[in-house]
Amino acid sequence: MARNSFTTSLLLTLTIFITITISSSHQPLALKPKPQFFGKFASSTNHSHSHQQSNFHYETRFFQQQLDHFSFKKSPKFPQRYLINTDNWVAGSGPIFLYCGNEGDIVWFAQNTGFVWEIAPRFGAMVVFPEHRYYGESVPFGSKEAAYKNASMLGFLNAEQALADFAVLITDLKQNLSAEACPVVLFGGSYGGMLAAWMRLKYPNIAIGALASSAPILQFEDIVPLETFYDIVSNGFKRESSTCFNYIKQSWDEIESKGQTTDGLDFLTKTFNFCQKLKSTGDLWGWLESAYSYLAMVNYPYPSEFLMPLPGNPIKEVCRRIDGGPTGTSILERIYEGVNVYYNYTGEIKCFELDDDPHGLSGWDWQACTEMVMPMSCSKESSMYPPYEYNYSSFEEDCFKKFGVKPRPRWITTEFGGHNIHKVLKHFGSNIIFSNGLLDPWSGGSVLQDISESIVSLVTKEGAHHIDLRASTKNDPDWLVNQRATEIKLIQGWINDYYQESQAVYEVKIPSSLSKILSSLSKIIGF
Amino acid sequence: MARNSFTTSLLLTLTIFITITISSSHQPLALKPKPQFFGKFASSTNHSHSHQQSNFHYETRFFQQQLDHFSFKKSPKFPQRYLINTDNWVAGSGPIFLYCGNEGDIVWFAQNTGFVWEIAPRFGAMVVFPEHRYYGESVPFGSKEAAYKNASMLGFLNAEQALADFAVLITDLKQNLSAEACPVVLFGGSYGGMLAAWMRLKYPNIAIGALASSAPILQFEDIVPLETFYDIVSNGFKRESSTCFNYIKQSWDEIESKGQTTDGLDFLTKTFNFCQKLKSTGDLWGWLESAYSYLAMVNYPYPSEFLMPLPGNPIKEVCRRIDGGPTGTSILERIYEGVNVYYNYTGEIKCFELDDDPHGLSGWDWQACTEMVMPMSCSKESSMYPPYEYNYSSFEEDCFKKFGVKPRPRWITTEFGGHNIHKVLKHFGSNIIFSNGLLDPWSGGSVLQDISESIVSLVTKEGAHHIDLRASTKNDPDWLVNQRATEIKLIQGWINDYYQESQAVYEVKIPSSLSKILSSLSKIIGF
Repeated sequence: MARNSFTTSLLLTLTIFITITISSSHQPLALKPKPQFFGKFASSTNHSHSHQQSNFHYETRFFQQQLDHFSFKKSPKFPQRYLINTDNWVAGSGPIFLYCGNEGDIVWFAQNTGFVWEIAPRFGAMVVFPEHRYYGESVPFGSKEAAYKNASMLGFLNAEQALADFAVLITDLKQNLSAEACPVVLFGGSYGGMLAAWMRLKYPNIAIGALASSAPILQFEDIVPLETFYDIVSNGFKRESSTCFNYIKQSWDEIESKGQTTDGLDFLTKTFNFCQKLKSTGDLWGWLESAYSYLAMVNYPYPSEFLMPLPGNPIKEVCRRIDGGPTGTSILERIYEGVNVYYNYTGEIKCFELDDDPHGLSGWDWQACTEMVMPMSCSKESSMYPPYEYNYSSFEEDCFKKFGVKPRPRWITTEFGGHNIHKVLKHFGSNIIFSNGLLDPWSGGSVLQDISESIVSLVTKEGAHHIDLRASTKNDPDWLVNQRATEIKLIQGWINDYYQESQAVYEVKIPSSLSKILSSLSKIIGF
Repeated sequence: MARNSFTTSLLLTLTIFITITISSSHQPLALKPKPQFFGKFASSTNHSHSHQQSNFHYETRFFQQQLDHFSFKKSPKFPQRYLINTDNWVAGSGPIFLYCGNEGDIVWFAQNTGFVWEIAPRFGAMVVFPEHRYYGESVPFGSKEAAYKNASMLGFLNAEQALADFAVLITDLKQNLSAEACPVVLFGGSYGGMLAAWMRLKYPNIAIGALASSAPILQFEDIVPLETFYDIVSNGFKRESSTCFNYIKQSWDEIESKGQTTDGLDFLTKTFNFCQKLKSTGDLWGWLESAYSYLAMVNYPYPSEFLMPLPGNPIKEVCRRIDGGPTGTSILERIYEGVNVYYNYTGEIKCFELDDDPHGLSGWDWQACTEMVMPMSCSKESSMYPPYEYNYSSFEEDCFKKFGVKPRPRWITTEFGGHNIHKVLKHFGSNIIFSNGLLDPWSGGSVLQDISESIVSLVTKEGAHHIDLRASTKNDPDWLVNQRATEIKLIQGWINDYYQESQAVYEVKIPSSLSKILSSLSKIIGF
């Protein structure tokens, strides 16, 4: 069986990008197009259409951070940006809410993590959003160009170093703010959620607990079936309409065969309203696949403008349009109508551009090519995507071509675990919430069952990608209101426990002034 | 107050070396001698006089290990040596006993960790002793000379990388031996014990528990009073005889004033029977100080030949000789008689050599100059040592001169914790035994109280440096026999829990053949 493949990449969850290789088993593609990257959502703050940002006040600071925490070779420091707000902080004793910055501009994450800002006042908490190294303005070697030049410069872009950054930063911050006694609570969504969970596990001395929202820490090796992600996306469409699911499933072959006719690419370019002529059907595949995956992630119950301006339950709307054309409407016309919901809901776009800079190196692409190796396949039966069987060799080859680096596909589970996680953590660790919405394709690689009394899973049937971390809206359904209330209660419990256990020590050791603060604080947060 | 200082270093516990700076506040030393290193004990196997080694059979293998686990820059691999014995292993299901190799030749540690070899058969356990990177034969860059050349080459010698080595090695080994289902139990003494405890905390996915013997994980920053170590050494002498303690306390001034007279160094050289003329009184100080500290560490109740051939309760014997001379015996003659117990108990030495290669770079010295910054002072009141107040600046300066590196004195507690450890780990982590003998000066920096139900402390009043890990002898006192029995019981409990929790899974998933093995195994180890 002849197999050509093309590689496309997806922004998975507002924040995680992965690279997958998709191949058509029966209709070889003529070209192997350059991968597309959707890092743009996280790489600037221009795409946020929300008004929430004006409510979040913070100071922007920089910390001279160690580039390499794990060797003592001479290495330069780099400026790590962090956003900080101490307005509501009960100085010296109030908690510190630390959001684990993920792969993008920290301002964007701060803007889209309203939950942390909203609950900080009631906890008397300081809020800190440190940026992840190599993203946003936290770039070593003086410039992004230098930092992203080659494997030698990119080498220090990984999760272990990022966690150590957070640990070193917060230790320094606590000292400077006389906040040594303050409990740190971690927050994170998507890759940031993975970091939050891992940080609580690796640095219990730094943080007392973590809310890890939509954190697919099990999306490695064969811990979950490789078809999981795309099956969940597909099910999101199927549950709206099996016709819709089938139209999409048929569309790939349709595109392929059109593409192979004379003027086929012209036809497709016109049908899908691209500004420039398509270079290959693969480009169109990638454009559509991304839309479906993103739609599944942000399939929120209310209108949102997280990645794109979208109606509530956007997949419902996509399928309404796909299914809805008059008799005789072609599959491709239907697909175009549907995908317009994602790419052009406001109707302002005159024609579509394919991703602007497919040649640029993305930070997440480096991470995916080194340690964040998340294998995925597309099932021929259960998915609406073209069937694809994960092929590590070709992935490895691509990474070597791109970065001159060989991935370490087993490293993450060695360093952070994942296999048999319920058994490993049943009597180890505490105070982690894994929250997931089952509409989110990343939920399949996350923790969906309680591990222990205090490492718990909050699952919402109608939730999508870390919706709980978003600012509350007046349209929030009850289940979301309840989910957040549960999270607040759990976090409050961690903090109460922390203070109560300190109190015995305090009563002996600390001056009465601190006792008073503690006592006032206990009234504020209600224990 | 004029202060000159000289730096000496001690092998603390058979395995840990630290560098301390000692200064006489009233009698300035003429020279600042080169530091002495006692790494020789751990750096070759020649010093073991025990017969035990013949009982321990193992195969020596090498694993191609990642030099830098925490960056993805291109870096060479290096051959990590490990000793392995599978004779008693219940293949596929029996536990794996992993000794966390410390700063020296792994063969030496294997020879001196009889406990692990002795208990392996009853557990049906495989035994693995991986060597710590940069020590023994596990040296990167092709040779010790190359690896120790400068900070750039030494950069990867640290605890984080060493732990990752163990994790990667054991993951690979399990796969190759079809041992994925086998629980790993960690063992370690001294620095190796620190590694074992930290490894259980950082890699619960790799190991189910750790016996951390004489592991001073709190000997950082100001977690314990800086005088602790030398106070414990001193008390070990004082409890035998306050006269003895006082003679030693007076001897430093005596040495100093003799050294300043004409032919003073000749006199001291002769009195202390050195083969070559002393270059400074500081050399003599260092030689004596090392002896006292080592004596405290190996103050075992029975004759031993661990560092040196020694009688049982060697400090008692030292003090007997110091106190025992006829009236008119000078302090220095007394000291010489006493220290002979340590340096020449067999009487075979004709004259003493000062440490052979004071210029050679020691691996531990590098570790102490980077992350293993263990501040220590000598109390003027309670210690028998010359008073010394820890001075970080001069320590930092020395390190920079020696290695061109600036220590990170707060890094270990950031990475591994230590402050408020009882609070941090009370509801986090499980299955660690911190065992300590109170005669051991390192016990002061270790965990001496239970942290939780399963992170426990075993303290023996009469124990010295990780005596529990040594092979049993017919002279073992009851408390030692009991201590080891408790350790075995606890370890057995961890393993039982592991199998019991697996069983539910096994019953559904595993073939009956494995169930049978498991069932036989459960009979062997008695659950």
